[in-house]
Amino acid sequence: MLGRVTARAEPRVLKHQIVRAQVDKLLDELDEGDPVPSERELALRFDVARETVRQALRELLLAGRIQRRGRATVVAGPKFVQPLALGSYTEAALAQGHRAGRILVGWTRLTADPALAGDLHIAEGDPVIQLERVLTTDDLRVGLETTRLPAYRYPELVETFDHTASLYAEIRRRGIVFDRAVDTIETTLPDAREAALLTADARTPMFLLNRVSYDPDGVPIEHRRSLYRGDRMTFTAVQTRDH
Amino acid sequence: MLGRVTARAEPRVLKHQIVRAQVDKLLDELDEGDPVPSERELALRFDVARETVRQALRELLLAGRIQRRGRATVVAGPKFVQPLALGSYTEAALAQGHRAGRILVGWTRLTADPALAGDLHIAEGDPVIQLERVLTTDDLRVGLETTRLPAYRYPELVETFDHTASLYAEIRRRGIVFDRAVDTIETTLPDAREAALLTADARTPMFLLNRVSYDPDGVPIEHRRSLYRGDRMTFTAVQTRDH
Repeated sequence: MLGRVTARAEPRVLKHQIVRAQVDKLLDELDEGDPVPSERELALRFDVARETVRQALRELLLAGRIQRRGRATVVAGPKFVQPLALGSYTEAALAQGHRAGRILVGWTRLTADPALAGDLHIAEGDPVIQLERVLTTDDLRVGLETTRLPAYRYPELVETFDHTASLYAEIRRRGIVFDRAVDTIETTLPDAREAALLTADARTPMFLLNRVSYDPDGVPIEHRRSLYRGDRMTFTAVQTRDH
Repeated sequence: MLGRVTARAEPRVLKHQIVRAQVDKLLDELDEGDPVPSERELALRFDVARETVRQALRELLLAGRIQRRGRATVVAGPKFVQPLALGSYTEAALAQGHRAGRILVGWTRLTADPALAGDLHIAEGDPVIQLERVLTTDDLRVGLETTRLPAYRYPELVETFDHTASLYAEIRRRGIVFDRAVDTIETTLPDAREAALLTADARTPMFLLNRVSYDPDGVPIEHRRSLYRGDRMTFTAVQTRDH
């Protein structure tokens, strides 16, 4: 049976994809932060049109293999690795020796629609506090986090919370214990606002994580929607057998 | 501090993104499998160029909101949900009442390069069996799975294994116990071959899962690379506190 192929691959390999693989190999020989050869240089070297090189470079950019630094294009470093775990983005970043930052987008007071009311175990129309922040790692914008909190659990939060600090630490300080979280993980493309806030190309594949965290009594603590740049982030998870 | 905005969004909302949101709303009123109105109809209704509608529809297609069925374009059903867990793709699909299938792409005999040797705890140059299959859910191609096994643990596998069956079940039948798995999860765009095997547009964001599974003695069982269509799959994970 060795080598038998039953799923037709209909090979339609496009020229820019061949060039992409060639440039990828070339980048292996460079260091992180090194400038990428110009379109003109690459077009000459591989004997293809500049438009073909441009398309190959665009795909390498979306894949996080190269990145823009001001007007230059340089070899990108490895992606940031974050465990899928309870707890805060910041703690994970710090544990790996990165600088983690947060930029306030805005606070909003909402009333719960049926879906959010269900997630947070509150009544439709109940007040909700929404905090939206851009997350940075080593000063790069990597994520956009929108946390929705049932207002009754967090009196004076909007007035007193330092929005550059860890929200998880603040919630813990209020005596609330994170016991369990349920995540759904999707891929998506950013909309125009999200792409702008993350200074990302609108064609960059993104992770979309939706999470509800619960305390030991099973009462919801937060609903969190996190959009992470797929060209900058890798998640890790460890699965173990039920004993 | 309410409403204060410190992260500039540089709003560059493009016309097709407005149309995309309008069409998205329109689709809410239709049922799964219903035909999507034609480009011409939508261009008239929203008073925009057909090219603008085309771009909006392309994005809705990449997002898995609509899908092609033969020559028609219809409202897509919800994504398939799969838990991030030990065990097989098939078991998860069956548990949710779906039909799960596998299409053989090919068997390959490799020798371990340094990275694979490290992952599988074998010596560089040791023989490895590679099995590549397309995974289907309800007859839709949703994933491409490449499993690499240290050959010494799986005598006669290539000759005797029914490639339409569960590889996990076969490994268990050989007395091997799955105890622990370490995953990394990335987003990526498919290359031309992968897009063709998954009958997906090459701009469809994909999940890339790399996994090494271990037995109770910590000996690697397999290295698995799974590419899942992001427009068809959602992953779920539950995080709990260390007690």
